[in-house]
Amino acid sequence: MSSEGKQNQDCLGWAARDVSGYLSPYKFGRRAVGNDDVSLKITHCGVCYADVIWTRNKFGDSKYPLVPGHEIVGVVKEVGSNVEGFKVGDVVGVGTYVNSCRDCDNCNRDLEVHCSKGSVYTFNAIDVDGTITKGGYSTYTVVHQRYCFMIPKDYPAALAAPLLCAGITVYSPMIRHKMNQAGKSLGVIGLGGLGHLAVKFGKAFGLNVTVFSTSMSKKEEALIKLGADKFVISSDQQQMKALANSLDFIIDTAAGNHPFDPYMSLLKTCGTLVLVGAPNEIKLSPLSLLSGMKSISGSATGGIKETQEMLNLCAARKIYPEIEVIPIQYINEALERLIKKDVKYRFVIDIENSLK
Amino acid sequence: MSSEGKQNQDCLGWAARDVSGYLSPYKFGRRAVGNDDVSLKITHCGVCYADVIWTRNKFGDSKYPLVPGHEIVGVVKEVGSNVEGFKVGDVVGVGTYVNSCRDCDNCNRDLEVHCSKGSVYTFNAIDVDGTITKGGYSTYTVVHQRYCFMIPKDYPAALAAPLLCAGITVYSPMIRHKMNQAGKSLGVIGLGGLGHLAVKFGKAFGLNVTVFSTSMSKKEEALIKLGADKFVISSDQQQMKALANSLDFIIDTAAGNHPFDPYMSLLKTCGTLVLVGAPNEIKLSPLSLLSGMKSISGSATGGIKETQEMLNLCAARKIYPEIEVIPIQYINEALERLIKKDVKYRFVIDIENSLK
Repeated sequence: MSSEGKQNQDCLGWAARDVSGYLSPYKFGRRAVGNDDVSLKITHCGVCYADVIWTRNKFGDSKYPLVPGHEIVGVVKEVGSNVEGFKVGDVVGVGTYVNSCRDCDNCNRDLEVHCSKGSVYTFNAIDVDGTITKGGYSTYTVVHQRYCFMIPKDYPAALAAPLLCAGITVYSPMIRHKMNQAGKSLGVIGLGGLGHLAVKFGKAFGLNVTVFSTSMSKKEEALIKLGADKFVISSDQQQMKALANSLDFIIDTAAGNHPFDPYMSLLKTCGTLVLVGAPNEIKLSPLSLLSGMKSISGSATGGIKETQEMLNLCAARKIYPEIEVIPIQYINEALERLIKKDVKYRFVIDIENSLK
Repeated sequence: MSSEGKQNQDCLGWAARDVSGYLSPYKFGRRAVGNDDVSLKITHCGVCYADVIWTRNKFGDSKYPLVPGHEIVGVVKEVGSNVEGFKVGDVVGVGTYVNSCRDCDNCNRDLEVHCSKGSVYTFNAIDVDGTITKGGYSTYTVVHQRYCFMIPKDYPAALAAPLLCAGITVYSPMIRHKMNQAGKSLGVIGLGGLGHLAVKFGKAFGLNVTVFSTSMSKKEEALIKLGADKFVISSDQQQMKALANSLDFIIDTAAGNHPFDPYMSLLKTCGTLVLVGAPNEIKLSPLSLLSGMKSISGSATGGIKETQEMLNLCAARKIYPEIEVIPIQYINEALERLIKKDVKYRFVIDIENSLK
């Protein structure tokens, strides 16, 4: 087991050491609890595709040793003197970012993730004190109170984890584009961690939901378990044609490259396709936008306030992600399975019972 | 002088006969004035780049002989028995489309141009009676009253013509995206017929307007004559960088291919670039949308109601296009100059005094 620095090395995590992305135990220190900080004993951490991207240095900016994980749920064990909203024993979540300037226009209008000085991501980022942030594949963390969420009472901690990245990533653009109005029609491209939550939100909002997938294997689950109204194989031109100009909104969770024009043709006048996955490139015909005043937009997680609103809504409406709970010792296999899309629909690491 | 069919050949136009796009006199008939029709003696017709596209069969769907022109102004000489809003002697405009189903969702919410059965364009389109529509490079026309606009009293007829395509094409997305709120920042890509009107609307709305151009030759005019606040050469990376995250909205009137990512980086969080020109392809990085929840949208002219609102606003606020009035006999040279972007900023044909 390796470690770093001279700080008190009392945090046990699992880190990748190189581009192989292979994770193994690693001891490191966290900062002392400041006046505005919340310290939490982590109980659960969701496994996001971002964990694959950065443990394997896909974007070329990985800083090893790298402790991933940004869907964190834990129990408060200590709070700073200025902390008001959280107390010892509360179940608290931390999502994809742990700091921002708290002073710019975007921070001031609850868009901290778009902080004009750059929000500080939960792992592999340089924090304001110069340290590299380390994520939730670890026993505890220390986070400024502003970036903590109260997990509603009785909402299972393991199920809350995927809401903190996958959930808010689809919820935020749906709310922004008024896709919480019953009767509207929603298309969901891709049925993974993000997509399956888009379907659940869509049904909770009373939308007519169509799932687009490349694989028939997901049809039954999409329609029966998740409650989608239609399931369409995106390569089936006849099925696609039948849906022309019928959707108000499409949420595109596909990570891989795919054509956009066929989906744009399914939107009604003034319809929008929101990208939340990250293909290499967007390429489309101008006519796909000009005919019918259509839009293609991007979205990236959400602000603190709307994340808390989403958590409260999920508790009130009993919206629960579908998860597969794993011990930390299974993480390398889990990441391989995630790459192969072999998960229904989110891995959540049982940190509390396996990382000791 | 050639002619067609057995109808009363009392309309004199100028038509292209083949892919050369060369225009010459041509006699043809118009339909008899129906109960809902307005017949107008054309006095002026603006020259749009669409006239180049279809006279030269750039989209492969030109139907010769082809009489172009969809920025039409004329004087009413006869109205059908059901016509209420117009009377003989009124000065009336006709824009880019002359028919639609008047029954679908889009028609019912003043989006006739996006009629779900397809709006009928003013020239080179197949009308509901099966005839091919013929445009405003002609002595008179007959149009259903719904697709006619009242040109406000005292607004010069020649100046009204460019508003009916170029004007509404930039006005409609500006209004839709709330870019009539003073203090917001507008970028305008390209300073031709559409771009110069976007600058004029922007200044009338109290916006901070930046013009992006490839040519220094337009700088003085943009700043002094049109009143833009900034002029930026789009290839100047330093100037572009200085504007990062500063614009609420960009209207892209450039017809040619150009990169999109550099412009997307100039938008603020939640900013939108609206395409009104027609490059061959849109290609951009997903990060240009994901970072800052940005959008790229399309727009195509506008509905009847908003076109009339724009005309009334231009009269009330004295917003006038910059035009070069030409006789019909100059049209072939004018189209060549238009291709070379050698016009400030819209040709308008003096039909009344030159086409006899």
